[in-house]
Amino acid sequence: MRVLGVDPGLTRCGIGVVEGVAGRPLTMLGVGVVRTPSDDEIGPRLVAIERGIEAWLDEHRPELVAVERVFAQHNVRTVMGTAQASAVAMLCAARRGIPVTLHTPSEVKAAITGSGRADKAQVGAMVTRLLRLAEPPRPADAADALALAICHIWRAPAMNRLQQAQAAARASRIPSTASVRKVTR
Amino acid sequence: MRVLGVDPGLTRCGIGVVEGVAGRPLTMLGVGVVRTPSDDEIGPRLVAIERGIEAWLDEHRPELVAVERVFAQHNVRTVMGTAQASAVAMLCAARRGIPVTLHTPSEVKAAITGSGRADKAQVGAMVTRLLRLAEPPRPADAADALALAICHIWRAPAMNRLQQAQAAARASRIPSTASVRKVTR
Repeated sequence: MRVLGVDPGLTRCGIGVVEGVAGRPLTMLGVGVVRTPSDDEIGPRLVAIERGIEAWLDEHRPELVAVERVFAQHNVRTVMGTAQASAVAMLCAARRGIPVTLHTPSEVKAAITGSGRADKAQVGAMVTRLLRLAEPPRPADAADALALAICHIWRAPAMNRLQQAQAAARASRIPSTASVRKVTR
Repeated sequence: MRVLGVDPGLTRCGIGVVEGVAGRPLTMLGVGVVRTPSDDEIGPRLVAIERGIEAWLDEHRPELVAVERVFAQHNVRTVMGTAQASAVAMLCAARRGIPVTLHTPSEVKAAITGSGRADKAQVGAMVTRLLRLAEPPRPADAADALALAICHIWRAPAMNRLQQAQAAARASRIPSTASVRKVTR
């Protein structure tokens, strides 16, 4: 499974590509950051991020794109930019028919370090060890993008089982729902 | 001046196209809403919004796109979707080299009704009168998109004067900055 992780941001949008399956050693295929100047206008910045992400998708052809789920936080100005950059990432993937999954920062930290409250240094150190890198990827946004991709590869089996169970539950409800409708007519 | 206004949203993205100049009667060229199903995944919804906005840009070829400036509000879930839909609108415009301007909801209400705290009904009524329509555009998102376009046409002369003054101030500072550099070397 080849996953492209995106740590969204307008000034620095982290990108990391990881290949592997849960339970086996993982391989880093690429890592980097798409940057846009903070004094540029928002429209051209979004276009630059789109071009950057398209280039990464062209080069690595991931089967799935994992994006950090954005929450409204204290810093309103930052969160809007993060939401906008994440929209561009999701749009680029969906246009190519590539599935997108979202993981919260806590889910990523918990998956990688065992603690949902790990700091950036701990995440960077674990990413370095898991991908057998010579040193932690810089800046932190690049390491976070790799962490997102690893998080997805590890959570995917459980997420798939959950989705299958939900689908089975929906399928098993169909007859009873139909009979209820029949009665109420 | 032909302006396409966008009231961004994932479920209903209002679009309105208005032509005219400040101080003259304005003409509505089109109004509508791009809708996406709320139970669809976010990626395909953003793709649907992109297609919808592209179709409006193809048909009306606006000189400028005016988008509502999004703030983090109480309803976190809604504001993220609004920020993401606005990113798609700004991206579509910027990709074509069409300038994008943002106006806050208060700026739009103040420009259209004279009060920054006007309600939706007042905005709808003024849009109906200003564009000489038979009835207020429905839903409110469509009326709000027209209000954004009108707001931009009316604010544009003042915004242009401000930008020119700022550019002149920057230009007049260049010699003194250069001489300071010379001294410090």
